[in-house]
Amino acid sequence: MKQADIVVVGGSAAGLTAAITARRHYPNKTILIVRQEEQVLIPCGIPYIFGTLEGPQKNLIPDAVLEKNDIDLLIAEATDIDREKKVLHTTEDQVGYERLVLATGSRPAMPPIPGFDLQGVFAVVKDVEYLSALDEWLETAKDVVVIGGGFIGIELGDEINKAGDKQVSIVEMLSHCLALAYDEEFCCEMEKVLESRGVKICTATKVKQIGGSGRVEKVVLSDGNEIKADTVIMGVGAVANVDLAKSAGLSIGLTGSIRVDRTMKTSDDNIYACGDCAEKISFFGGRPSPLKLASIATLEARIAGANLFGIRRENVGTVGVWSTAVGDFALATAGLTEAMAEERGYDAVAVTIAGPNRHPGLMPGAANTQVKLVFERNSGVVLGGQVMGDATAGEIINAISACVQNRMTAEEIAMFQIGTHPALTASPIAYHIVNAAEVAIGKMRKRC
Amino acid sequence: MKQADIVVVGGSAAGLTAAITARRHYPNKTILIVRQEEQVLIPCGIPYIFGTLEGPQKNLIPDAVLEKNDIDLLIAEATDIDREKKVLHTTEDQVGYERLVLATGSRPAMPPIPGFDLQGVFAVVKDVEYLSALDEWLETAKDVVVIGGGFIGIELGDEINKAGDKQVSIVEMLSHCLALAYDEEFCCEMEKVLESRGVKICTATKVKQIGGSGRVEKVVLSDGNEIKADTVIMGVGAVANVDLAKSAGLSIGLTGSIRVDRTMKTSDDNIYACGDCAEKISFFGGRPSPLKLASIATLEARIAGANLFGIRRENVGTVGVWSTAVGDFALATAGLTEAMAEERGYDAVAVTIAGPNRHPGLMPGAANTQVKLVFERNSGVVLGGQVMGDATAGEIINAISACVQNRMTAEEIAMFQIGTHPALTASPIAYHIVNAAEVAIGKMRKRC
Repeated sequence: MKQADIVVVGGSAAGLTAAITARRHYPNKTILIVRQEEQVLIPCGIPYIFGTLEGPQKNLIPDAVLEKNDIDLLIAEATDIDREKKVLHTTEDQVGYERLVLATGSRPAMPPIPGFDLQGVFAVVKDVEYLSALDEWLETAKDVVVIGGGFIGIELGDEINKAGDKQVSIVEMLSHCLALAYDEEFCCEMEKVLESRGVKICTATKVKQIGGSGRVEKVVLSDGNEIKADTVIMGVGAVANVDLAKSAGLSIGLTGSIRVDRTMKTSDDNIYACGDCAEKISFFGGRPSPLKLASIATLEARIAGANLFGIRRENVGTVGVWSTAVGDFALATAGLTEAMAEERGYDAVAVTIAGPNRHPGLMPGAANTQVKLVFERNSGVVLGGQVMGDATAGEIINAISACVQNRMTAEEIAMFQIGTHPALTASPIAYHIVNAAEVAIGKMRKRC
Repeated sequence: MKQADIVVVGGSAAGLTAAITARRHYPNKTILIVRQEEQVLIPCGIPYIFGTLEGPQKNLIPDAVLEKNDIDLLIAEATDIDREKKVLHTTEDQVGYERLVLATGSRPAMPPIPGFDLQGVFAVVKDVEYLSALDEWLETAKDVVVIGGGFIGIELGDEINKAGDKQVSIVEMLSHCLALAYDEEFCCEMEKVLESRGVKICTATKVKQIGGSGRVEKVVLSDGNEIKADTVIMGVGAVANVDLAKSAGLSIGLTGSIRVDRTMKTSDDNIYACGDCAEKISFFGGRPSPLKLASIATLEARIAGANLFGIRRENVGTVGVWSTAVGDFALATAGLTEAMAEERGYDAVAVTIAGPNRHPGLMPGAANTQVKLVFERNSGVVLGGQVMGDATAGEIINAISACVQNRMTAEEIAMFQIGTHPALTASPIAYHIVNAAEVAIGKMRKRC
């Protein structure tokens, strides 16, 4: 039997970050990661395996970081937790622990669409072998249907489309791709970009059936249309892996994930959870949130890892910050969209500012950039932002996220001291974030 | 005689932004800008006139924004203020005002180096005709010496060097180019980039004399060396234009700029000042600050413009956020460097994190990126940050600036909810800003 002060189950973004954080905070403790995978994929990089990168081997988290941080590794499946004896059972060995961190992640949701078990139907499974097989299958594929137009669906669809010899279609049951995270005008721009690259978009329709005998031949939609298909990839979300937690009798939350408090502690004082397997609450209002993102996972891991032997950090709730890119076009979001804010009952004031991200606009590399900020009218506090532009959108959203997390008001954002440069940003006279706040102040004043 | 409720003297970044802000806050007031220039240059774009852009005409602030905001324009030189009668005298007409905003800007410093009046010696004068003449002169120039290795000096030097037929040298009296805004290791990287592009760098030496008979022939350095030169450009800083304010009897501050309070009001209750002509105080400690940047000017203008008929905003002091770029290489800074923090008496803890700004690092466009954060040991509050990387550095610094302005602690920054994407940012496990805070926490803990 092995023994470690801190045992982490799972070696992806959450597990690894929890272990590294534990090492930072508890330099004298022994730390062991137990994971199933020989090699760990970078989760957000998975869509890029099929185009930009050349296969799963180019998208791995190097294990060198374990040695560097004095973290031991056991490759095995965790099968059971003896909470009384504080022992983790695995397929290889038993492991005694002082503190256990569950970072068991999630697996793709597989809705029981008739035909989902046909040959040629895949999901985005975070497994090198599985994805290698999909990669190989795609070499001869001609008609690919991606079910689900969230960020995984559109990135995957676009990457597969890059080969140039396939017709890729994305089917989304909501009115627009990305509709859960962006306001309609942002979604429409992304759909236009995808279509201009040859990807077919079918929105506001469900998949009724995957047709074929033995192998996939077509996808039948609820509107009666059929799409020819030799490959179907499900990208309809993820389900928390809670089997281990459940069988150990840990509390499960409303979203089907492991219930944790703000310190990331589960219902067992010696067991913490973080990442896709752990329940999240929203930064806005505090209700459970279904978001699952690697960036949220690492934040929770930094909380869990620091708190193992004494509370040092608390989770203020998930803002939800992320970005997506297709070609040179990027979208990014933080917090609530205008539609989400209204749905939740906020009196929202939204302002969009458009303009180049260089100054003058004639500077090379200038891309049209739009920033939308959403404020709560009474307090003036910013609730969220969305950015549309080039690669810089991915960092502009982080500046916005800082404003959201500090619950800055429009007035405070109008006083934001930004740095600008002709070759790098919008002009100081027209900087999107600041001007959106200025315009919002005017709108809020008028309606008072 | 003309009359306007609000009269703004100066039409560049500060004046224009003050007028637009006044329009936002006081929709019923009449607003007039009085400026000397027929056409207004984008100040930060000036170095790019000589390479990337093709002449001053590609680097103008369009006057359409005036009409759009219902702002009148008088092209004339302001010559005197009759504060008692509230009348501005100009070379064209007299203008009565309720509130006057001085945004008279700055002019290049011209140290009395022997030979500074020779033909072929220029400065960075914000004037279309002057810069057109310099542009034309440079067509036949072969040996160009830029005196001053601040951001104007290095950008100008690199742009002129792009023509490929000139030897450009930059002379800087401090030990490194950019030494007033970056720690040494950042300055050295920029010097390497400039040298790799063929620009000669001479640091830690002053210019003793500009030699020649009639025309420039050489630059004589204090170390005895001589540099062949047919062109010399002075880029050694700027001096506030305060003649108008001085002759009107307004108070002048310690840095030679117009003294203002935190509302941007001068010693006259009806006169405000903003931009390069107005005195700044530092966000750190509150002493006068010599910084002059368009982004600071626009912030001050948003304060002045809002406060003209009642105090709405106060200036918390200048953080100092700006970036610079040479080719694909960018540097950005916010707040205090490690050296500045120590000089001012802070017990500084600095951490640098290096790594690609994509994940995996094999993603196309990945550039090595370094982020350095500086914290105050006792409080853990972040005092500043520096970024080295590609174009995204210009927005990463704005996320850091948000942290600085909110006086976030290392612990709060370690909990920063960032958005990440393979094609846009560093990985969530290795995001520079967050990890710098994590490492700093460890350093601060050890020394307690």
